[in-house]
Amino acid sequence: MRAAVDLPKAYRLLNHGPTVLVSASHGGHRNIMAAAWNMALDYAPPKIAVVLDKSSYTRELIEASGNFCLNVPCRLQAATVLAVGQHSGRELQAKSDAQDKFAQYGLETIPASRIDAPLLEGCVAWLECRLIPEPHNQQQYDLFIGEVVAAWADTRVFSQGHWQYSETSDPALRTLHYVAGGHFFATGEAFTAQELPPQR
Amino acid sequence: MRAAVDLPKAYRLLNHGPTVLVSASHGGHRNIMAAAWNMALDYAPPKIAVVLDKSSYTRELIEASGNFCLNVPCRLQAATVLAVGQHSGRELQAKSDAQDKFAQYGLETIPASRIDAPLLEGCVAWLECRLIPEPHNQQQYDLFIGEVVAAWADTRVFSQGHWQYSETSDPALRTLHYVAGGHFFATGEAFTAQELPPQR
Repeated sequence: MRAAVDLPKAYRLLNHGPTVLVSASHGGHRNIMAAAWNMALDYAPPKIAVVLDKSSYTRELIEASGNFCLNVPCRLQAATVLAVGQHSGRELQAKSDAQDKFAQYGLETIPASRIDAPLLEGCVAWLECRLIPEPHNQQQYDLFIGEVVAAWADTRVFSQGHWQYSETSDPALRTLHYVAGGHFFATGEAFTAQELPPQR
Repeated sequence: MRAAVDLPKAYRLLNHGPTVLVSASHGGHRNIMAAAWNMALDYAPPKIAVVLDKSSYTRELIEASGNFCLNVPCRLQAATVLAVGQHSGRELQAKSDAQDKFAQYGLETIPASRIDAPLLEGCVAWLECRLIPEPHNQQQYDLFIGEVVAAWADTRVFSQGHWQYSETSDPALRTLHYVAGGHFFATGEAFTAQELPPQR
């Protein structure tokens, strides 16, 4: 089940450093791409930062619409993450107006609540974002900043403001940490530490 | 053993989203803090972004010196990550010029090669950075950008440009993904995926 995440807790969806999928739409076109380079940027109102290469079609849609979604995929979707991460939606779009990555890879979407962007079905969390335009960052560093205006999570894995991964939870629903060349790490063992006491 | 990481591969030290410790020194003072909000920003020359709260003493040292190091800690150091993450070096500094977090928690350091900042012994990777001053980002978003001028990794866990974590590697050397309230995830199972083929 998908449930709303309180906005001041939205940073926790990204705090452990998962790879995300960035989705956007504009003028009847839509696209989705992978982005390992993302981070939380503020608590309340929640903000995030993500790196979007100049060649990416998703970036063009975001710059036009001012909206995007960070979708947090799980291990079940690793093949999808690679597929949408390694091909440009621009090429598909050039072939046919009706073709996009969602159609090509059979990806189902969910409507967003506060923005105009497709949310990818099967992910375990979603952050609906409004672009905070920062032309210098976008041009110089490919760095995009967004305010999170709605957040959602799959209650099987995130509830009460926390990821609920444990030894008994389904490993296919773990979030992903991309490395390179098709290699990933799954989110691993949960543990709690006690603060080191002063040594002197 | 600590070995240099080729600069165009330095992004891989952060690509999977580990929590880092940020260290800096200036005018005979030094400090170290935890930062879950960090990401790679470019390949070559490599750049990184990290969020540093206005209250942090490390930020003050970085703004003064123009240098900092992102230290990538491992599970063995989780108690240290919490300790340096939850106390301000400014308070210690106010008590005594000779006291700092390194002294208080018995933390050993290694000299940096290209910057003036302490590297924390026992970490599994280090990115020596020169601050790229961006006053608007720093003031508005607490967002700091650095160019990585040298990178190092513990060859037990990172070699040939890749993290070498496997089922047989020492779990205490896994990198960390901080959540909140003393809760962490360790970097988990490594796996390789094949790209989803087009569905139509």
